[in-house]
Amino acid sequence: MLRDHEYTLDKELRLDKNENPFELPPSPREEMRQIISKIDLNRYPDPLANKLRSKLSMKLNFPQERIVIGNGGDEILSMLFMAYVKPGDKVLTLYPCFSEYKRLCKIFGAEQHVVPINFNDKHITLDVEQILDAIARISPKLILLDNPHNPTGTFIDPALLINIAKMSPCPFVLDEAYVEFASRSSLDVLKKNFPSNLCILRTLSKAWGLAGLRVGYSLCSDEIAKTLNEIKSPFNVNVISQEIACIMLDYDEWMKSRVYSIRFLRDKFIEEVNEIDTFYAYPSQSNFVLIRSELDRDYIKAFLRDKGIMINLLDLDIDGFTWMRVSIGKEEELNYVIQAFRSIVRQPNAEFVIA
Amino acid sequence: MLRDHEYTLDKELRLDKNENPFELPPSPREEMRQIISKIDLNRYPDPLANKLRSKLSMKLNFPQERIVIGNGGDEILSMLFMAYVKPGDKVLTLYPCFSEYKRLCKIFGAEQHVVPINFNDKHITLDVEQILDAIARISPKLILLDNPHNPTGTFIDPALLINIAKMSPCPFVLDEAYVEFASRSSLDVLKKNFPSNLCILRTLSKAWGLAGLRVGYSLCSDEIAKTLNEIKSPFNVNVISQEIACIMLDYDEWMKSRVYSIRFLRDKFIEEVNEIDTFYAYPSQSNFVLIRSELDRDYIKAFLRDKGIMINLLDLDIDGFTWMRVSIGKEEELNYVIQAFRSIVRQPNAEFVIA
Repeated sequence: MLRDHEYTLDKELRLDKNENPFELPPSPREEMRQIISKIDLNRYPDPLANKLRSKLSMKLNFPQERIVIGNGGDEILSMLFMAYVKPGDKVLTLYPCFSEYKRLCKIFGAEQHVVPINFNDKHITLDVEQILDAIARISPKLILLDNPHNPTGTFIDPALLINIAKMSPCPFVLDEAYVEFASRSSLDVLKKNFPSNLCILRTLSKAWGLAGLRVGYSLCSDEIAKTLNEIKSPFNVNVISQEIACIMLDYDEWMKSRVYSIRFLRDKFIEEVNEIDTFYAYPSQSNFVLIRSELDRDYIKAFLRDKGIMINLLDLDIDGFTWMRVSIGKEEELNYVIQAFRSIVRQPNAEFVIA
Repeated sequence: MLRDHEYTLDKELRLDKNENPFELPPSPREEMRQIISKIDLNRYPDPLANKLRSKLSMKLNFPQERIVIGNGGDEILSMLFMAYVKPGDKVLTLYPCFSEYKRLCKIFGAEQHVVPINFNDKHITLDVEQILDAIARISPKLILLDNPHNPTGTFIDPALLINIAKMSPCPFVLDEAYVEFASRSSLDVLKKNFPSNLCILRTLSKAWGLAGLRVGYSLCSDEIAKTLNEIKSPFNVNVISQEIACIMLDYDEWMKSRVYSIRFLRDKFIEEVNEIDTFYAYPSQSNFVLIRSELDRDYIKAFLRDKGIMINLLDLDIDGFTWMRVSIGKEEELNYVIQAFRSIVRQPNAEFVIA
């Protein structure tokens, strides 16, 4: 018999893709139903998504003509490679970083050069001098840096970012997919004197909880906006996603309260993980948490699969630890993970079928 | 006072993008409203769009694993360039052809080589020997051929297409965006012995009347499907478009009756244009009609703008004619165009502000 605080799964627990666990409230759902009744699906969408760009422009106090909308942030990344990277060119990223950067380097025949993040015992740092050295040494054609950083959750100081942009001979892509979860934003600092080689990437997939909609956007210089608009497939964002994004942007109070919930649950989860032997969770400014363990990777993998928990077991070879990234879900989901972590420690010799 | 058969515009008449003029019937709209009430927008879409691929597979009797779904056919074209075209490579197309081919060649730094369509006095032909010669001579890395051909509306014999595919040292892309409007299809012939370098492109934007949804697909060989799936951005088709496409595919009787209407209106429109002096409309197997006129291009342009008619005035320099492509709209819209063409001929010295 279950104790009343216990939680059981009716399907797999998806904490591997940094999705927002909260579904939409009824009110925007009703607005969406009304839109679906009226929308002209037989007509091509607005190529420039002007209604959506105008909303974002007002919301962020950023010039509309320097906002470019993509079919998810992924498409904007792909456009940046199409625009600036030729086979054999060098692309600079951190290590580790968002897996899509490596995949795109491979597709476009680029050499990925990495600057490693420093994993100190209990905190993570970034050596900006090392990045500046690498820029001077390899003359990259594109620099990709995610802030908050994925998968560590570390937030990089905006002042350092301005330095990197200044020293870059090429477009500098600042991927802010998770920025709403951080306690600060770089935009106010960067907006004051926006570098002509800067391209900030944002998305409605994370904090806004609209991963299924595929809407991302970039805030960039005139030069980069012009280039991206030339590269962009004419009708890249479908008419329904454009309309729903416009509806949702009016629900920013709802979005913010969800973000505060996630930040609260995240910090509580980190504390609880850190009470368990052999697990250590790093501080995070995002909606995911980096965790390391001394336990064997295959053992943890089989254990979690047995429990129906999907998290991102990272392919990192650092200090001999097993590394994981856990997305912040609902409270009962995180409690279930904590219980699993506790029991994994209690049964170090249990046997699971290892994939 | 208007005579009762006259039609006036309350907004511009959009006959420039080959959109389907018919809106959706109430029944799928209701299904869409229900889907919107339930769909998990906070979760990423199925990367492989398996539900949609399975429907298409059954409908077309084509293996599911060789169907790739794109954010419109445009995205699949872009993926084909990413996969097969490097800067300096040669891409073979017809002249004229879909404008996107030229744009993509420019973006990817490819040399576009063209084989001209033959504009005989009253009918259009394609010299397949010229295509085979060009293939042997330039060794292209990608061949793009639209059938029915855009902007002429000509349908190329499937037997000739098999020959082209056989002689091609590279992927051969057969763009069938408009195939449902033709009196025949190549698929039955090609399916029997599907060439390993063939990639057929299809879309729900035209016959299905879902241009706003952005769903295209390719029917291709195992090799090309594997490559496209490696290239493809993981979450390229949003969850709502996937679901709505699945709903709409069950309305194929509705789709077919709309297609018959368009074919009927097209043939009637061609007859009526050909009764007007100085205009000649070519036969078409698509939802658009190619028209030439001896009247001055700028004059026609200003006249049509004055009448609120948007058609595609082509940038073709062939035989000194002015060339236009008119999308087939609703009956009253086409009657309005016919009246405009008649009056343009009656007022050859009228003055309009020329843009």
